[in-house]
Amino acid sequence: MNLRLFRSSALVSLKAREVLLLDQVSSHDVIDTAELELSRLSNYKLTPSSSQLKLIHIYHAVSKEDHRDNRFFVRALVPIGRPNTGMFQISEMDLFFTRILEALEVASAQHRTADCNHVFMNFSSSVTFTYDEVVAVLSGFIDGYGDWLSKLHVTETEMRISLEHEEGNVTPIRFIFESVSGFVVDFYGYREVSADDGTTILDAMDKKGPLHLQPAHQAYPTKDPLQYKRYQAHLIGTTYVYDVPQLFSKALDEIWTKARTIDPSLTIPTTLLEYKELVQVENDEYIEVDRAPGQNTSGMVGWLFTLRTPEYPLGRRVVVVANDITFKVGSFGPLEDDVFFRITQYARHLGIPRIYVSANSGGRIELAQEIMPLFSVAWNDEKHPEMGMDYLYLSHDKFLKLQETRPGAVRTVEIKHQGERRHKITDITGLEAGLLSGAGLIAGEASRAYDDIFTISLVTGRSIGIGAYLVRLGHRSVQVEGAPMILTGAQAINKVLRRDVYMSNEQLGGTQVMFRNGVSHLTARSDLHAATKILEWISYIPEFRDAPLPIFQGRDTWDREIGYKPPKSAYDPRLLIEGKWDDTSGEWLSGFFDKGSFQETLGGWAQTVVVGRARLGGIPMGVIAAENRTIERIVPADPANPASVEQRTMEAGKVWYPNSASKTAQAIFDFNKEGLPLIIFANWRGFSGGRQDLHDGILKEGSKIVDGLSSYKQPVFVYIVPNGELRGGAWAVLGPSINSEQMEMYADVEARAGVLEPEGIVEIKMRQDKLQAIMERLDSTYASLKRDTKDPSKTTEDRVFAATLLERRESLLLPTYKDIAILYADLNEYAFLLNDFVSALTCFAVVPEAWRQKAAPNPQCGRTQENTSIGLSERVLPAHRRWLSLRKPILGRPLTTALGC
Amino acid sequence: MNLRLFRSSALVSLKAREVLLLDQVSSHDVIDTAELELSRLSNYKLTPSSSQLKLIHIYHAVSKEDHRDNRFFVRALVPIGRPNTGMFQISEMDLFFTRILEALEVASAQHRTADCNHVFMNFSSSVTFTYDEVVAVLSGFIDGYGDWLSKLHVTETEMRISLEHEEGNVTPIRFIFESVSGFVVDFYGYREVSADDGTTILDAMDKKGPLHLQPAHQAYPTKDPLQYKRYQAHLIGTTYVYDVPQLFSKALDEIWTKARTIDPSLTIPTTLLEYKELVQVENDEYIEVDRAPGQNTSGMVGWLFTLRTPEYPLGRRVVVVANDITFKVGSFGPLEDDVFFRITQYARHLGIPRIYVSANSGGRIELAQEIMPLFSVAWNDEKHPEMGMDYLYLSHDKFLKLQETRPGAVRTVEIKHQGERRHKITDITGLEAGLLSGAGLIAGEASRAYDDIFTISLVTGRSIGIGAYLVRLGHRSVQVEGAPMILTGAQAINKVLRRDVYMSNEQLGGTQVMFRNGVSHLTARSDLHAATKILEWISYIPEFRDAPLPIFQGRDTWDREIGYKPPKSAYDPRLLIEGKWDDTSGEWLSGFFDKGSFQETLGGWAQTVVVGRARLGGIPMGVIAAENRTIERIVPADPANPASVEQRTMEAGKVWYPNSASKTAQAIFDFNKEGLPLIIFANWRGFSGGRQDLHDGILKEGSKIVDGLSSYKQPVFVYIVPNGELRGGAWAVLGPSINSEQMEMYADVEARAGVLEPEGIVEIKMRQDKLQAIMERLDSTYASLKRDTKDPSKTTEDRVFAATLLERRESLLLPTYKDIAILYADLNEYAFLLNDFVSALTCFAVVPEAWRQKAAPNPQCGRTQENTSIGLSERVLPAHRRWLSLRKPILGRPLTTALGC
Repeated sequence: MNLRLFRSSALVSLKAREVLLLDQVSSHDVIDTAELELSRLSNYKLTPSSSQLKLIHIYHAVSKEDHRDNRFFVRALVPIGRPNTGMFQISEMDLFFTRILEALEVASAQHRTADCNHVFMNFSSSVTFTYDEVVAVLSGFIDGYGDWLSKLHVTETEMRISLEHEEGNVTPIRFIFESVSGFVVDFYGYREVSADDGTTILDAMDKKGPLHLQPAHQAYPTKDPLQYKRYQAHLIGTTYVYDVPQLFSKALDEIWTKARTIDPSLTIPTTLLEYKELVQVENDEYIEVDRAPGQNTSGMVGWLFTLRTPEYPLGRRVVVVANDITFKVGSFGPLEDDVFFRITQYARHLGIPRIYVSANSGGRIELAQEIMPLFSVAWNDEKHPEMGMDYLYLSHDKFLKLQETRPGAVRTVEIKHQGERRHKITDITGLEAGLLSGAGLIAGEASRAYDDIFTISLVTGRSIGIGAYLVRLGHRSVQVEGAPMILTGAQAINKVLRRDVYMSNEQLGGTQVMFRNGVSHLTARSDLHAATKILEWISYIPEFRDAPLPIFQGRDTWDREIGYKPPKSAYDPRLLIEGKWDDTSGEWLSGFFDKGSFQETLGGWAQTVVVGRARLGGIPMGVIAAENRTIERIVPADPANPASVEQRTMEAGKVWYPNSASKTAQAIFDFNKEGLPLIIFANWRGFSGGRQDLHDGILKEGSKIVDGLSSYKQPVFVYIVPNGELRGGAWAVLGPSINSEQMEMYADVEARAGVLEPEGIVEIKMRQDKLQAIMERLDSTYASLKRDTKDPSKTTEDRVFAATLLERRESLLLPTYKDIAILYADLNEYAFLLNDFVSALTCFAVVPEAWRQKAAPNPQCGRTQENTSIGLSERVLPAHRRWLSLRKPILGRPLTTALGC
Repeated sequence: MNLRLFRSSALVSLKAREVLLLDQVSSHDVIDTAELELSRLSNYKLTPSSSQLKLIHIYHAVSKEDHRDNRFFVRALVPIGRPNTGMFQISEMDLFFTRILEALEVASAQHRTADCNHVFMNFSSSVTFTYDEVVAVLSGFIDGYGDWLSKLHVTETEMRISLEHEEGNVTPIRFIFESVSGFVVDFYGYREVSADDGTTILDAMDKKGPLHLQPAHQAYPTKDPLQYKRYQAHLIGTTYVYDVPQLFSKALDEIWTKARTIDPSLTIPTTLLEYKELVQVENDEYIEVDRAPGQNTSGMVGWLFTLRTPEYPLGRRVVVVANDITFKVGSFGPLEDDVFFRITQYARHLGIPRIYVSANSGGRIELAQEIMPLFSVAWNDEKHPEMGMDYLYLSHDKFLKLQETRPGAVRTVEIKHQGERRHKITDITGLEAGLLSGAGLIAGEASRAYDDIFTISLVTGRSIGIGAYLVRLGHRSVQVEGAPMILTGAQAINKVLRRDVYMSNEQLGGTQVMFRNGVSHLTARSDLHAATKILEWISYIPEFRDAPLPIFQGRDTWDREIGYKPPKSAYDPRLLIEGKWDDTSGEWLSGFFDKGSFQETLGGWAQTVVVGRARLGGIPMGVIAAENRTIERIVPADPANPASVEQRTMEAGKVWYPNSASKTAQAIFDFNKEGLPLIIFANWRGFSGGRQDLHDGILKEGSKIVDGLSSYKQPVFVYIVPNGELRGGAWAVLGPSINSEQMEMYADVEARAGVLEPEGIVEIKMRQDKLQAIMERLDSTYASLKRDTKDPSKTTEDRVFAATLLERRESLLLPTYKDIAILYADLNEYAFLLNDFVSALTCFAVVPEAWRQKAAPNPQCGRTQENTSIGLSERVLPAHRRWLSLRKPILGRPLTTALGC
């Protein structure tokens, strides 16, 4: 029974139930306070908040140890009666829970700093559901209220429900939902059992949570010191830096859950994530240590993670570096720069992926403080300081004192003023010099890192100035909604513009800007969602520089048939890549790649081309496909320019525009650095060559596609799709002779290729005179009339008449002969064949066993030097060659051979 | 006497003179036909054209050998009387010459194909000017009428004038202006002298022209066979391909003339240009041969040029590859692709610059012809062909015949139609397969060439599709006005749009589009102008890959003083680079670089940054300077989008926008590949961070600056200019720690640096409370009022009154204290010093003698292997290091040291 499905419909009838519920509440005159378990609040000094509802008790609690630790405890008795149906109960609970949160909202207005609030609900009656059913209901429930709970800083919700078994006996269960680190909800279920000494202890139902075998009525602990920082981070909308490992651990959980849907036989490892913090020791060296969270002495923290993923169940390593937004608001000072620099170098040294978790405030702004209480002012008019001042100086005695205590803190010029010795200040040099130079240091390193290793960023909080640049310099990025990337804050820009132009930083550099222009490759709803996407991305990437590609073989093999066949009409090219459920039969029509293996990136930008990564028979590949539908492109208005309006332009499918050419090139560069083979699903009529496109640099962007392909180091397969075409300028940037070492081209039997479309060729090469010649050859009437017009034996009159008839005949026949010409031109095209789409796939995927084996997961995780030394190119190239020889007898000539390359 | 100066004023009084001149003409009743030298037209069959003026005789002449060779001869007797003043004579000549050209215009309307027209003017009276004076007058004259002469296809103007000497005797001189190859005008002067046999022969006055020592009355030769092709090329507005060597020879002439203005002691070599054509022999090999022009068998021609330049008077080599627009309209077919590919490879093999002269029609469009007279049509209704057709087929006998003569020319499927054996055509495969694959071949090679050697293009004629891509793939380009770079012709686009949107190709991809978006680095008025600019550019470039930089030491040394000092107000940064004439004193205020050595590139695009190349003490360098004035940026409307309008936006100086960041990065990449050291005149407040800029990818473009600098292989000097500043985000992309191996930073004593401007820092770090504290410390009135407000001995009333006074005092003082805060913040900045701008230059230019000597011209032109093997980086790096140690004692700490990098 899927209880969760009932929930939303139940909500509809809520209004009707309300009266009943309130009645029930009011009828409870006597409350059993023992059921509120108030003894467990003994670590706190309590102040009850007034509540309208007798069943809901709210206490504002201040820790007896640390007065900063203040929180709310909500203790509620749930009066839900013995159920008739599941539906009934849930709608009641919904209403009751709403009441609790409303009450908390009112109470918490008095104590804004309250954090780690706690809700306890004790169900007064038992229910007849199984444990699993209740878990399903409650999980859905907590999910639905997630945002509200998070807003009210409720970090733990505890529910005590007695389950009634069929045989009549009852088991009290405690369900605990925790989201201390924010965004990630942990769930634990415990059964209450009586211990020998008579106390009640908790026994974990499923996974062993922190309260397993602990007394059920233990007092709630006071706040973890990290919780203050966590709270600060949550206020800014980001995960606290020391919760980043937990975030990725949760994300790994989701990755495995998804992997098991593909291969149920997979065993999920017990520990998904191990990590060591990277800490500086003497000599600027960084070592991996186990250190308690929160010991950081700068606003930048780094780790070495070992991730156990479906591709690398024994573990793969990544380096993570993250801003601590709670440390000097996450600004970049010399120390932060140094940590970022060295940890990135560490990742480059190991040749493994580097993840940057970005939430910061840009470069640190400082002002030397020592001179503040010392300087004097030379006034224009000593008696009227409001008349302005001339310069700042140190009096002679203060100058002497400063020379003693902080020599060099200031540069001065000695002057005499009415006999007084003054030291006019020319420079104050107290600032850390590294404040300015550090930005270049880390920018340069980030740029080199993108060239050298796999770099990706998780934009979890605002990323400003150098923070935004670090993300872009690493190229790949996942931006969480609500985390803007900007250069200057909205308020500062408003100040320059002298009017309130921008409402928020989000408006400047949020996902609606950065995803649409391709700075953000992916967006995410939450940090967890973002971490999951990063792990999905990393699943295509070798575990270290030049390592074999990670293979994850699911049910789909390379030699299966393809279910989806692209139609002649417009369609979504993603269907060709990943397949679809048939609209009528409900059957699965498989796509080119393994089911569920496609991750599209840069999806918000230049949508006339689709790019991403996918697996074919488990082998990861880069994918580029032409969109063939017309797409609306929206250029947002800039509030700073009153004349600007939102522009919507239609971009035709199968045509490269400056933006889509740029996207194509960028994807090629990324794939190449990631060591992926590449397939391009070609279907282009060429480049858009209007004035706007030429002005916007279509030649520049198109050239970059050539630059990318000509330096590509892995096999590239260009495949003109069924009912697709490749024309004109597209040949200059996709022709396999751009890089004959690596590129191969295929065309479906239903594909077309040529310089111009048949209509265009006819326009140039089969003009009227040629058509007339064909007419004369094929149409006897036309031919005989033509003869008549020239026949000297006829009278002039007859010849003129024949000419008139000839002209009429020509007009009559012309449309048909134009069709003939177009058909002739069309037949002339380079319709080189593979047998069909399915055979093409077979051809494509006959990757030799040699490559496949080498690309298999390496149980040593490639940590030995021998493995690292085998470059991918050395391995893939011969394999690629071998594969060519394998392919030929199967399929006859591919297009490239036919073209004579 | 500067006769040319009189000319324009003389024209003003032209109208008045007209009557007189016509009177004179009509008064000449008897013409001495011998003076027309008609005997020299004996190689032609002549038809006189009627002319209103008796003194002007026009003949339409057809060669007796080749009837295609037809031209006009204009024979005129110039009736100008013995002069009173030079002015009088010139105005008369102007009018007379206008009459000649008008008459020719009328006559030539009858013979549109006439080419190589000839004008002969015989002056009936002698003049008293010297030879040099007459040359000056006539040259200016021909210059002024150049366009008209060119339009009328006049390739030679001959004038016979007798010069009268003071002593009374007279010398007849023939002045011949030739522009056979178009655009370039050659001038020769000959004196008529009597030979021993009584004939008159010509004796060159100055340089020895082709008629030196030839009979004066020799018959005019008939047309050079190449002239037809030349004519075709000129019609399209471009130089004929085999005139390209002459074009560069002329350009070298201009280069030397300019070089002599800098160093008059230079000796101009006798031969400026030597060249060999690169011709394919067996085995696809190309060899250098002397071959007569016009022997090409494809539309692509290549040469190895040896250029004698001021930097390399013994010669430097470049490879030139050029389209022949007269060969299949300059389209790219397999042969052209192959020639381009191999000649580019040849240049890469030698490691020397490659110049591409582009004038073409894009990819060749072909249609197999063999099947055209053979196919039959399956009509829908045999009796009514106008009802349309079904398919094309070959009848059985034609099929059999074709199988014999051209097996495989067609693919067919045999079908039966009413008992008849038909072979339905499915494919016609007669086309050269290379048509499609060649584009990729040359695109890939062009892309690699840009990475490998110095590549530059001269866009002399329209460049379409792959032709435009080849230009862009080589990056550097000089576009001649009127030579568009496009992807699709205007007519073809109009057809797609179904309305006449574009008037011309020029409108699509002319200089007004391509120079403004940075595809064209330079524009030129003419092919000669363009060739000159290319040679100027090459003068900064080592003669071969990794060779020493070419030094051209003029009068300016590196250790001279700089005359121009940038003011605090806005100014043109070019003045700082190249100097200026002082507005008041008329004195030369020298700039940073050698006088006259600056060549700005990309000047039409993103004008808030200025880039180019210049010499310092003869050493070539890349230059990047921030514009500090506000610039208007114009985005043209696209006629294809009726809603689009021309957009004008103001871009502030000292701020990076997406376009100027992109330009900065592109210049850095180009300079790096060219092996140039780089100086950046920094003066930036940061990046523009509005929504539009973020949307337009400011982060992407800014990141490329980092990418470029972090991989720079030569020394980079960042110099914050006098009265300049460097703030905020600019530090992330210019900080010297981006590439500490190569980068150094300097700041003028009058420059400022910091994260924020003082106003911004005060906003954040010195809010009201801090100002109040300073006020309390410095202002006794304020302090005592404040004490009063808290003094418990006072009455409440007094305290309230004191508070009111305190508030008033605060308002009064606040403006001054804000100034104090801003000054305090300003003093806090990183105003690190070099002594001043001049010292900075000294510091900068102390290039060690070791480097300077190595960079001197190599008399062997670097053709020996030993020279090639010395990489620039090996040589420059240690020098750079040595220079660092030299610099320190001279100047104290540079900014970089101060910053602790």
